[in-house]
Amino acid sequence: MEVPPPEELMHPLYVPNKTLMGPGPSNGSQRVLDSLSNPILGHMHKECFQIMDEIKAGVKHLFQTENVATMCVSGSGHAGMETAFVNLVEDGDVVLLACTGLWGHRAAEMVKRVNGDVRYVESRFGRSLSIKEIEFAFEGHKPQVFFIAQGDSSTGILQQNLKEIGELCEKYNCLFVVDTVASLGGTEFLMDAWKVDMAYTGSQKVLGAPPGITPVSFSDRAIARIKARKTYVKSYYFDALLVGQYWNCFEAPRIYHHTISSTLLYGLREALAQFCTMGRKNVIRRHQECSHRLQCGVEEIGLEMLVPKANDRLPTVNTIKVPVGVDWRKVSDYAMRKYKLEISGGLGPTAEQVFRIGLMGENATYERVDLVLNILHEAIQSSKIPEKSKI
Amino acid sequence: MEVPPPEELMHPLYVPNKTLMGPGPSNGSQRVLDSLSNPILGHMHKECFQIMDEIKAGVKHLFQTENVATMCVSGSGHAGMETAFVNLVEDGDVVLLACTGLWGHRAAEMVKRVNGDVRYVESRFGRSLSIKEIEFAFEGHKPQVFFIAQGDSSTGILQQNLKEIGELCEKYNCLFVVDTVASLGGTEFLMDAWKVDMAYTGSQKVLGAPPGITPVSFSDRAIARIKARKTYVKSYYFDALLVGQYWNCFEAPRIYHHTISSTLLYGLREALAQFCTMGRKNVIRRHQECSHRLQCGVEEIGLEMLVPKANDRLPTVNTIKVPVGVDWRKVSDYAMRKYKLEISGGLGPTAEQVFRIGLMGENATYERVDLVLNILHEAIQSSKIPEKSKI
Repeated sequence: MEVPPPEELMHPLYVPNKTLMGPGPSNGSQRVLDSLSNPILGHMHKECFQIMDEIKAGVKHLFQTENVATMCVSGSGHAGMETAFVNLVEDGDVVLLACTGLWGHRAAEMVKRVNGDVRYVESRFGRSLSIKEIEFAFEGHKPQVFFIAQGDSSTGILQQNLKEIGELCEKYNCLFVVDTVASLGGTEFLMDAWKVDMAYTGSQKVLGAPPGITPVSFSDRAIARIKARKTYVKSYYFDALLVGQYWNCFEAPRIYHHTISSTLLYGLREALAQFCTMGRKNVIRRHQECSHRLQCGVEEIGLEMLVPKANDRLPTVNTIKVPVGVDWRKVSDYAMRKYKLEISGGLGPTAEQVFRIGLMGENATYERVDLVLNILHEAIQSSKIPEKSKI
Repeated sequence: MEVPPPEELMHPLYVPNKTLMGPGPSNGSQRVLDSLSNPILGHMHKECFQIMDEIKAGVKHLFQTENVATMCVSGSGHAGMETAFVNLVEDGDVVLLACTGLWGHRAAEMVKRVNGDVRYVESRFGRSLSIKEIEFAFEGHKPQVFFIAQGDSSTGILQQNLKEIGELCEKYNCLFVVDTVASLGGTEFLMDAWKVDMAYTGSQKVLGAPPGITPVSFSDRAIARIKARKTYVKSYYFDALLVGQYWNCFEAPRIYHHTISSTLLYGLREALAQFCTMGRKNVIRRHQECSHRLQCGVEEIGLEMLVPKANDRLPTVNTIKVPVGVDWRKVSDYAMRKYKLEISGGLGPTAEQVFRIGLMGENATYERVDLVLNILHEAIQSSKIPEKSKI
């Protein structure tokens, strides 16, 4: 009873070329895409180590950190989040999760699995958390670990007061974990200056590398906490001390920890090189200018941003209220069908309520902003026409 | 105090074209490498789902299974191993690990982190485990989960009696986990017929796709065990029920679980398509013929295989004893320096003792066998010449 080879694998691979202006992944540059076809390299070859060293240096610049424990985990952004909690949380540790959208709740999914004691501090809908609200929660919960997403891609909320939160965490002797998956490169992030203990970001957002490899960094304080654990880190694959040893972060010789994907290293290396060539501050400014242009355009076509205060708006993932009487799915389908352009709907707390427009990397240009505004407007108009009158 | 952009990222990416005849990764075909440069796709786009469905069908054929819970995890082969244990093991469960080389011990690293009760059954050096040895261990330990590597890439041992082990596991109501990372496609593997409950394999070995995405499959019995867990699966990222829902394995609608790497999907899809085009049985026969040719050649040049019984030899990763007076490192360095050919040394229990020659995928051809034999012979001769007389 042989299980036969599937017929569908006999057809050629079909990959359409789309303009990815949802919350990510974003389009890769031609330089990044070309790099992916390079020959495979062994995970213990010196040329592979060199690329890893270059990436590590690039990630330190990206995060603005001098942490020795700066590396990548071989997985998606969710793997970065899991890496934070499996390493930093022991049974019964109180973990305070800031919720400005979906990601605090997603973090809870991971914390509970490693027997952390989950607590929440939730912002009012559409708003970032004030330092007062956070300090109040610290008083009540006395957390060992605090988590926040700098940018929540479900609501489009940007958390501007990370520096103040870092001081709060220091005061309460609490480890400070920041999810920068959707925000990094679109807004300032200063890991060391803001006293962040663990950060991770997405390869496939502003950087425009493929998903599947995730930059992470741990402060010396975080590494000391891991070394002082009384119980094993509950994952071998995401064990920061082992992954870090493979990435040559510590004084110990490199070990074979897992077979890294050289393909993904090439893409990330080239994406970081482009980021450095363009200049970190220029990239951030460009993303902010593009978001500003989009916000003005949104107003012009009679739409409204979800996040009321301009200061609370994430430049990379922009949330726009779906007008009354409009079916967001029809709008999204129209843009994809007619223009191969991705405009997303909401996620988690914003499901059915917003359009999400990503302005990241290759797509953070005035041209793309104007394109997406035009198509969004056209798609909304089209979706308002009753089906009958279209015939 | 800006952390400056690293100078080294201003240099062009350098990737040499090597012949990878170590224990993996192996070389990708041009078709696979070309596919990697395709545009990025969203992780929830229908074209991405279609490719995932095609891969799933290909993996079912590859494993010879009709398990609905057939999917990939977004990580390397080690992630496949971790997926087995985080899902199947609860606190205190007795896990019997077969050791025919390194991989049983690596599995222990993972089992202990999820509070499994680790037991071992070790083979005599250079030999596979007999069914008698295994049954004796079952009697003594009464395991809930049994693990074995079909092929141990550190020793080059092939375990031929998986069918009998499957029956044993059934008799003892024990879940049967098989690591096929190094063996699949180089030797027969019949997941359903052999009553295997969980299997995973490497993308970067016989298949010749890039590392970073790992096919896994769970039997209905294994899924039932997971559903009946009293405690959470200790990983969100590797939770088989969630990953499986994203891969559309169950009756429930697809969910957004993580951002899959479309790039790696392309490579794996094309590798599976090539595998199906060549024919499963042809691929296996070719690998066995190549290994046979290599073994004959090894004897001809006066070397000796590590594994004494021909039946116990893994065709994909061939272990050859390092002759007395020869430094394996010099041989390996010579082959790499002069021919960009990878010949590896030992690993774990075979460190310093063997050469490991991989015959996998693109490198499982008579031409490559003859090439590696020639170069191995030349490199050994060269390494025997005292340094002085070379001048």
